Amino acid sequence: MSAWLLPDHIADVLPSEARHLEDLRRNLLEAARRYGYELVIPPLLEHLESLLTGTGEALELQTFKLVDQLSGRTLGLRADTTPQVARIDAHLLNRQGVTRLCYCGPVLHTRAGGAHGTREPLQFGAEIYGHAGREADLEVLELALDALRAAGLQGLQVDLGDVRIVDAVLQGCALTPAQVSAVHAALAAKDTATLATLAAPLPADVRAALLALPTLWGGSDVLQAAAQRLRGGAALQAALADLGWLQARLHELAPDVRVTFDLADLRGYAYYTGVRFAIYGGQGQPQEIARGGRYDAVGAVFGRQRPAAGFSLDLKQLVRLVPAPPLRAAIRAPWRHDDAALRATVAALRAQGETVVCVLPGHEHEVDEFACDRELVQRAGTWIVQPLAA
Amino acid sequence: MSAWLLPDHIADVLPSEARHLEDLRRNLLEAARRYGYELVIPPLLEHLESLLTGTGEALELQTFKLVDQLSGRTLGLRADTTPQVARIDAHLLNRQGVTRLCYCGPVLHTRAGGAHGTREPLQFGAEIYGHAGREADLEVLELALDALRAAGLQGLQVDLGDVRIVDAVLQGCALTPAQVSAVHAALAAKDTATLATLAAPLPADVRAALLALPTLWGGSDVLQAAAQRLRGGAALQAALADLGWLQARLHELAPDVRVTFDLADLRGYAYYTGVRFAIYGGQGQPQEIARGGRYDAVGAVFGRQRPAAGFSLDLKQLVRLVPAPPLRAAIRAPWRHDDAALRATVAALRAQGETVVCVLPGHEHEVDEFACDRELVQRAGTWIVQPLAA
Repeated sequence: MSAWLLPDHIADVLPSEARHLEDLRRNLLEAARRYGYELVIPPLLEHLESLLTGTGEALELQTFKLVDQLSGRTLGLRADTTPQVARIDAHLLNRQGVTRLCYCGPVLHTRAGGAHGTREPLQFGAEIYGHAGREADLEVLELALDALRAAGLQGLQVDLGDVRIVDAVLQGCALTPAQVSAVHAALAAKDTATLATLAAPLPADVRAALLALPTLWGGSDVLQAAAQRLRGGAALQAALADLGWLQARLHELAPDVRVTFDLADLRGYAYYTGVRFAIYGGQGQPQEIARGGRYDAVGAVFGRQRPAAGFSLDLKQLVRLVPAPPLRAAIRAPWRHDDAALRATVAALRAQGETVVCVLPGHEHEVDEFACDRELVQRAGTWIVQPLAA
Repeated sequence: MSAWLLPDHIADVLPSEARHLEDLRRNLLEAARRYGYELVIPPLLEHLESLLTGTGEALELQTFKLVDQLSGRTLGLRADTTPQVARIDAHLLNRQGVTRLCYCGPVLHTRAGGAHGTREPLQFGAEIYGHAGREADLEVLELALDALRAAGLQGLQVDLGDVRIVDAVLQGCALTPAQVSAVHAALAAKDTATLATLAAPLPADVRAALLALPTLWGGSDVLQAAAQRLRGGAALQAALADLGWLQARLHELAPDVRVTFDLADLRGYAYYTGVRFAIYGGQGQPQEIARGGRYDAVGAVFGRQRPAAGFSLDLKQLVRLVPAPPLRAAIRAPWRHDDAALRATVAALRAQGETVVCVLPGHEHEVDEFACDRELVQRAGTWIVQPLAA
């Protein structure tokens, strides 16, 4: 095997994309900062139990494992940052009031999300702890939309769902956790055949409601249809009311953003406990760009269960959907160690933020791979910047 | 074990330090950009052979290994970024001319560097490929000093050495690679007892020169002493001349920076082939902040051996040595979804770069953990910013 071959679904990010990725990173972190979200940097490696607690089998399968020489214990490479941020809120910060946190760093997956997916997404996310009301759901949604707009993404669409709807539908049925998981998986995959099999032994009204769920997607008429066709009592009504409220607020905040519903949407990790959302954009991209919602139980294993809502996205996916800012062109300068005036001019230009590339001795006739559009030349004893001769 | 316990020498970075770290990251990447260094982002995971090629046992011991489910092959978590950047230069970019690259990302080590060291440094570095002359060594040194100054580090000191000196001293002795490695290790550890044992069977002039090396550190008189006390012919003279030249150039470029020599300095990974440097700073900190030099052979295994020089540093070490910039205080705003004027005012303040924290319903009387010094209040129908009542 050649030493330069990378593992499948692992890639270098080369200069033009790397510069764009770094720009996006700054834009997203700045957007979160303006909303009052404080940056945290959890480690890449933790004890496996800390990374997986309460988050279900999907995350475990995605997590690379290795052995710690210092302790002999099994460590995991984080596949998702949310359990870590919940640990920080619960244990390290341990604040009484509302806490807003954000993060941006790599996560690693044992398998890629698709044929062209990466196993090393660059995950950005923001989370709010300590407020159980729908106002927190709205705030993270608003921040996600603002951040994506700041990144240059257009044609945004929000798809809303709520885990409480299927929970309400199944309420009163004596199902084992494994059976509930199987129902969730069938709904997530929109696998109506399996769903019909799983629903067969259930009471007729539950069966009808379960089989109706995968058809309940689209515009705002979905909420009315759900109220008529699903059973579930007060819990169902509360979930539907929150979805309607969010839609109305989003319409006020961001009238250009189309809002749709998908009441069977249960994709992603198993820690969601309420409203869930997916954001699409970039002219007909079928893949969602950001995903989030409410996950009130995620900190429980760390000794402090707090209301929590948030979202995350992969910068390596986002960078391909938005146009890169134009490259700021550089200035070529000759290399002369004995010319103090040249050195001072180069330093002054760099202090102004210019990129100045010094041409090292013997490389004067190389093709310029870095985009230089100007050069530093000496005229009448003074160093001046002039356009580069074509 | 409690789920919130982290492995030894692994830690979260909490908000105040994370914000500072992110600021430093931007400063360092901006400094490199102004010198014409293009950002690359190599992956965290690679086939083990690609990460270790030609870099010696020290790096192998530091590298976490795991198995790739997709291929069954052994992967490594990068412990150092330089071999990856060499691979990118050699294979992906494959340019003919001078190529300048920089990077900033985590690396992972199986063992920590010291009692308070981290196993997850945040490595920043810059590298120049394609120029064999000492001008490239000078450029990376100048960039390293500029970057550390931009980060706020004062009292900088540069310590210079050159691997060619010990190579020249040993020239003509029929030593096995293992014996040479043992000499290098004894010199790196300044272990004169072991060095005397290893030197015992060597010719008297070689032995004397080897035992003199650990004493050759200090100011510029070291170069004269070396010329007198070491044997080694033209190669030795060339190395000493380069060190003297670098010292003179540094004195011109950065007269405030103290330059010293340590001709036995062989610490760090085994890929150095010429000038090496360590930068100290921060008022009597015994640990070096940045380390670099020339490593012309590092790309050989990727099919293209190019002259190369560069440096790297750990941002998590640097962040503790420089004062954090003052926190930019935030503005508190009430939460009212039905007030379009309030929403517009908040959006306008955020667009100006202000941090605006909305107080969610029911949390009006919480202690403000985020540093708010102003608040948004309604006066005569208009929303205005005023200092926060103490």
